[in-house]
Amino acid sequence: MEKVNLREKFALFNDFWSPKIVGELNDSYVKLVKFKGEFVWHRHEHEDELFLVVHGSLVIKFRDRDVRLEPGEFIIVPRGVEHLPVAEDAVQVLLLEPKSTVNTGDKNDQRTVTDLRRI
Amino acid sequence: MEKVNLREKFALFNDFWSPKIVGELNDSYVKLVKFKGEFVWHRHEHEDELFLVVHGSLVIKFRDRDVRLEPGEFIIVPRGVEHLPVAEDAVQVLLLEPKSTVNTGDKNDQRTVTDLRRI
Repeated sequence: MEKVNLREKFALFNDFWSPKIVGELNDSYVKLVKFKGEFVWHRHEHEDELFLVVHGSLVIKFRDRDVRLEPGEFIIVPRGVEHLPVAEDAVQVLLLEPKSTVNTGDKNDQRTVTDLRRI
Repeated sequence: MEKVNLREKFALFNDFWSPKIVGELNDSYVKLVKFKGEFVWHRHEHEDELFLVVHGSLVIKFRDRDVRLEPGEFIIVPRGVEHLPVAEDAVQVLLLEPKSTVNTGDKNDQRTVTDLRRI
């Protein structure tokens, strides 16, 4: 049982769209990820997903609107809701989601990651 | 589905040791709480609990050591592990834990809160 310093963990990787596991509790993982650019429209059929912005600015597009998240802001995307993360510049995000969650949800994409690294 | 700004939410309350619900996902709540002083030794028999410090400095005492958390640091306390949060000065903390979790765990205390407010 060690504490986790977010800044130190984000300094350990530079690849985008590839979440790293930094903690687990109950049935969920805490993950850190860097986004840059536009991801892929997707949804998670059975999992709600939390996005907390730590550094930078993130837009999450929904089919009916866009939500911009700044540092210290989070949103919970309920299961079944299509969404598209877009980062104009690099952004650091903390994710919280069930262990079963795959980053691209119902879409297969070259950025799909199923074997997550722990840092 | 609205975003949550942590700073704005923390400005809405001033009582200590009384977690407020600011989000729910899967089987868990996201809660915000202000601590000041020393809480009560307790454990959660069936629930892992995440403490993320947003503002201020928090010590979590365990039976064998103390861990100090600064802003941007979190720790996950596994189920069954006794712990005692201590805040020398006021501290703002984000909690993530199953909906079934009671703040004082296996202890009854005048600070036990079972009916949490949503903000």
